[in-house]
Amino acid sequence: MKARIIVTLKTGVLDPQGKAIEGAFKSFGLAGIDGVRQGKYFELDVAEADPAAARAKLTEACEKLLANTVIENYHIDLA
Amino acid sequence: MKARIIVTLKTGVLDPQGKAIEGAFKSFGLAGIDGVRQGKYFELDVAEADPAAARAKLTEACEKLLANTVIENYHIDLA
Repeated sequence: MKARIIVTLKTGVLDPQGKAIEGAFKSFGLAGIDGVRQGKYFELDVAEADPAAARAKLTEACEKLLANTVIENYHIDLA
Repeated sequence: MKARIIVTLKTGVLDPQGKAIEGAFKSFGLAGIDGVRQGKYFELDVAEADPAAARAKLTEACEKLLANTVIENYHIDLA
């Protein structure tokens, strides 16, 4: 089963990388883009036919490895 | 207008970062997850009311800055 995971910074956590990208947009003459926040994106295959079991395994993967749950949220999409 | 951009490696481009994550899953006792590919995720605000104009501006942003179009694809979602 294919899955996609998006990990984003929680609201209120500063995102200096996003700020740097905003600055770069301005240097490149792209005005009118702001509020940039960068996150991480993962595509993976889970060897589970049952969506609930797949989601449980991916939740464990996010909690243990992919996301720092102190400052990040994660979102799992099963395809 | 809010937008989300996902940048992924093109098919066939090696993803050593994804492979490292797969290895880490195995070390953490999470068997049955493979085919891991990591990408980048961006949330941003575009100061355009017209979806076509917003998409044109974001396409330019992707081509110039966010994606290396030799090895990466990008996908723009307008919310």
